[in-house]
Amino acid sequence: MPEHVYQKVELTGSSSLGIQQAIENAVAKAGETIQNMRWFEVVETRGHIENGKVAHWQVTIKVGYTLPH
Amino acid sequence: MPEHVYQKVELTGSSSLGIQQAIENAVAKAGETIQNMRWFEVVETRGHIENGKVAHWQVTIKVGYTLPH
Amino acid sequence: MPEHVYQKVELTGSSSLGIQQAIENAVAKAGETIQNMRWFEVVETRGHIENGKVAHWQVTIKVGYTLPH
Amino acid sequence: MPEHVYQKVELTGSSSLGIQQAIENAVAKAGETIQNMRWFEVVETRGHIENGKVAHWQVTIKVGYTLPH
Amino acid sequence: MPEHVYQKVELTGSSSLGIQQAIENAVAKAGETIQNMRWFEVVETRGHIENGKVAHWQVTIKVGYTLPH
Amino acid sequence: MPEHVYQKVELTGSSSLGIQQAIENAVAKAGETIQNMRWFEVVETRGHIENGKVAHWQVTIKVGYTLPH
Amino acid sequence: MPEHVYQKVELTGSSSLGIQQAIENAVAKAGETIQNMRWFEVVETRGHIENGKVAHWQVTIKVGYTLPH
Amino acid sequence: MPEHVYQKVELTGSSSLGIQQAIENAVAKAGETIQNMRWFEVVETRGHIENGKVAHWQVTIKVGYTLPH
Amino acid sequence: MPEHVYQKVELTGSSSLGIQQAIENAVAKAGETIQNMRWFEVVETRGHIENGKVAHWQVTIKVGYTLPH
Amino acid sequence: MPEHVYQKVELTGSSSLGIQQAIENAVAKAGETIQNMRWFEVVETRGHIENGKVAHWQVTIKVGYTLPH
Amino acid sequence: MPEHVYQKVELTGSSSLGIQQAIENAVAKAGETIQNMRWFEVVETRGHIENGKVAHWQVTIKVGYTLPH
Amino acid sequence: MPEHVYQKVELTGSSSLGIQQAIENAVAKAGETIQNMRWFEVVETRGHIENGKVAHWQVTIKVGYTLPH
Repeated sequence: MPEHVYQKVELTGSSSLGIQQAIENAVAKAGETIQNMRWFEVVETRGHIENGKVAHWQVTIKVGYTLPH
Repeated sequence: MPEHVYQKVELTGSSSLGIQQAIENAVAKAGETIQNMRWFEVVETRGHIENGKVAHWQVTIKVGYTLPH
Repeated sequence: MPEHVYQKVELTGSSSLGIQQAIENAVAKAGETIQNMRWFEVVETRGHIENGKVAHWQVTIKVGYTLPH
Repeated sequence: MPEHVYQKVELTGSSSLGIQQAIENAVAKAGETIQNMRWFEVVETRGHIENGKVAHWQVTIKVGYTLPH
Repeated sequence: MPEHVYQKVELTGSSSLGIQQAIENAVAKAGETIQNMRWFEVVETRGHIENGKVAHWQVTIKVGYTLPH
Repeated sequence: MPEHVYQKVELTGSSSLGIQQAIENAVAKAGETIQNMRWFEVVETRGHIENGKVAHWQVTIKVGYTLPH
Repeated sequence: MPEHVYQKVELTGSSSLGIQQAIENAVAKAGETIQNMRWFEVVETRGHIENGKVAHWQVTIKVGYTLPH
Repeated sequence: MPEHVYQKVELTGSSSLGIQQAIENAVAKAGETIQNMRWFEVVETRGHIENGKVAHWQVTIKVGYTLPH
Repeated sequence: MPEHVYQKVELTGSSSLGIQQAIENAVAKAGETIQNMRWFEVVETRGHIENGKVAHWQVTIKVGYTLPH
Repeated sequence: MPEHVYQKVELTGSSSLGIQQAIENAVAKAGETIQNMRWFEVVETRGHIENGKVAHWQVTIKVGYTLPH
Repeated sequence: MPEHVYQKVELTGSSSLGIQQAIENAVAKAGETIQNMRWFEVVETRGHIENGKVAHWQVTIKVGYTLPH
Repeated sequence: MPEHVYQKVELTGSSSLGIQQAIENAVAKAGETIQNMRWFEVVETRGHIENGKVAHWQVTIKVGYTLPH
């Protein structure tokens, strides 16, 4: 872990399946344009309710990635 | 999403199964008396430990619902 | 719940399986040296990303336990 | 201000006009069922964007009111 | 502590006697309409000053209670 | 609201006219390069004082927008 | 912006007209005794309710000013 | 409560007797130089331990007072 | 106060008598195993309600103590 | 540490040299008018960037001092 | 400071030399792609420990820059 | 980074030399009894003032270390 610089982006993933799938959806989408993703941090967990049930889980994360030298 | 007013209530659901089930238990119980629930926000995640293992997951959420016109 | 005194320790569990397993790993490890664990509180949820996917879930918790009389 | 007890409820008002109107909408709606409202505190200010413009202002407040003796 | 659901309400008690009496006033008032109160959490401690002295202690708490099955 | 992923950017708008205009300036500027903006959240409200009067209102917001499939 | 030192004071302005007027009232009052005010930061927005309507807007700000060399 | 402006100062009172006496000491000291004190808010409660016992209670408060017209 | 290093532990004391007694119970219990305790900081104040009354006060504190040279 | 009362003021020091010099500048300036300063607490660390480099370090601190008996 | 709009990015710089160098590394790296950087705010200071010593200082900052007209 | 569990301890280091030396003092002292320290996080930065100058820098950190398998 030498003199690297990392950048963080904030994303909200959603999924009808659950909290972890919402996070993995956000990470997968970020990976389409970002190289060298290293970690994520959960910022907030929410969800959408329809007909009295949880319809979508929505998790906001920050994703950190290494900037190229 | 016109000039609606929403109210939030704070609930703690518990479950021996896990975090999501604790949330769904709280939403289901709230739905017995509240119409038009729209979203929830996780406030805190805790749990009860018995005999060195997680016995109950306890998740505090806020549930937002539309007030009738 | 009479005049007990509780102590809290802060732990980070990790797991490739998910959030709940990371918490249970931390509780199990703590139970090797701590008697009378009573509850936990989630402080932070993070994770390690490798090859564009979540490789490890890392959950920091506080574990509260009863101090002996 | 003698030995009163106050209760707080959390509401989100929305308005296409602006922040203050969103608050006033929430207070007016709360006043339909709550007597003796005394103060509010702003918790969060958000808004909905449509076609690149702010379409609705959404302000979450807590409203405090005196409980009857 | 099986699969219960708890609700929380936010109250401000006041008392000329002190912090604990303000909390107990709020709990007693809540008990007039709420069954099965289980715990409280202090949110904020304030007070009113008159003639250079503390005239009323005002403590805001959240009270948690079990929802009926 | 199916399996979307949203990104958030943090912006500070300024205006000599007021709080709402500062927000709208930030949203308008963001809209020059961002498609599909959906919501904003106010993070901080500040201002610049000149000659004893508020000269500019400065509002920091986060803007959330849908990432393309 | 050389080696200046700034001091901050915390003020609450009130106004029946609105949020911005409450801030401007606080800044104007501070300017009666403070030279070289440079910026303000909003700390909290509250209000007083009378007869079911917002009667006064109350905004707490911090005002920063340059200390003389 | 017309168009008043209030200022807040931050004080730490200490007392060997307890939390409330520490607050009252701070309010009494502030009253030697400040007119028209109106309210206080507790910011932090700490204490000094000597020989395994609480020797002094230290409570940091903000005191709000009306600025003269 | 030369080049000392201090450690903090987090404890929750409980008491049926009140807030200060709960803190003193926690400090007394910590003193059974910790030398050179220097200060405490209140982290959270809660309580247990039975039969509509406060049955136990529960105060979480951090206790700081000097590590031996 | 008998029954003293302490006051805190909030200051921002700046320096082109670094974080500690910015703090020391603020303390030195405060010492021109305040007797008996006892401690400081860092509130925020920021800086000004010019031509792609840090030009000034700006550190906001609270300074606590003993009020005279 | 006319009607500008600023954007903020969140970066983590690391350095074996110290806190300031970690910040300057992050600012320098950001300057490779961002024009018109104006200020930074420290979000978090951490570090990596190897063989019982601080091996790398890691400072997370937000960098604000002017968006072009 | 397989299925490790980490523990955190909270320490305050002090130094007359500066912020970094205070952190390094705390890490060095912790290393006398803790194996496998991995990282630290700064929690709070304070200092002691004597004769109008900073006499000691005091930095509170959390140190994370790997628990043995």
